[in-house]
Amino acid sequence: MTHDVINFTEKLARIPKPWSPRVVAEMNDYQFKLVKLQGEFVWHSHAETDEVFIVVKGTMQVGFRDREVSIREGEMFVVPRGEEHITRASEECHALIIEPRGILNTGDAASGLTAENDVWV
Amino acid sequence: MTHDVINFTEKLARIPKPWSPRVVAEMNDYQFKLVKLQGEFVWHSHAETDEVFIVVKGTMQVGFRDREVSIREGEMFVVPRGEEHITRASEECHALIIEPRGILNTGDAASGLTAENDVWV
Repeated sequence: MTHDVINFTEKLARIPKPWSPRVVAEMNDYQFKLVKLQGEFVWHSHAETDEVFIVVKGTMQVGFRDREVSIREGEMFVVPRGEEHITRASEECHALIIEPRGILNTGDAASGLTAENDVWV
Repeated sequence: MTHDVINFTEKLARIPKPWSPRVVAEMNDYQFKLVKLQGEFVWHSHAETDEVFIVVKGTMQVGFRDREVSIREGEMFVVPRGEEHITRASEECHALIIEPRGILNTGDAASGLTAENDVWV
């Protein structure tokens, strides 16, 4: 919990590399995480929750098995719970992720890209 | 629930006046609402939940009985549950509000500014 105003640019400057989400705020039992995306993540799903992406810089894609969506700065998207998906960004993209506390970034597909959870910046 | 990408600028263009939050997305039992702020709202609190503001254009203030915070474009703030507050914007400001479904904009202080709830845009 923080009672400060959170500036996305300042927080992002302290995130060292892609695919390393960092918690910036909590609301009830939900967390707000900033993440840098570059390249391709892994196919995974979250059986227990929807997941929101708000793009604050650049463009990212969310691929599903039957379609792909592109999300630009000033746009948001809700990944439905249980739907297998993969995130991609050809150039570095910055996004705010909103999801319940305790959700792993790789969902059901733990791998070398699984980030340490609940790390604040 | 929507499976579309949500563009804030497009949605905001369809909101006719200040203090009329419009739902643009749901994640689990939470709603994302866009709102235009201009002038001064009313003192109120939400006993049951924190409330998040993300500013997408302009600058807004959240006043508390003992302090005031200013939130600019690219910044977010969490209003803690139960804390009496008032929102203000000297010039039109656009923000994304995140809170559980069913929360009234005026919290415990119903007034002429109480907006119809759960209206989508």
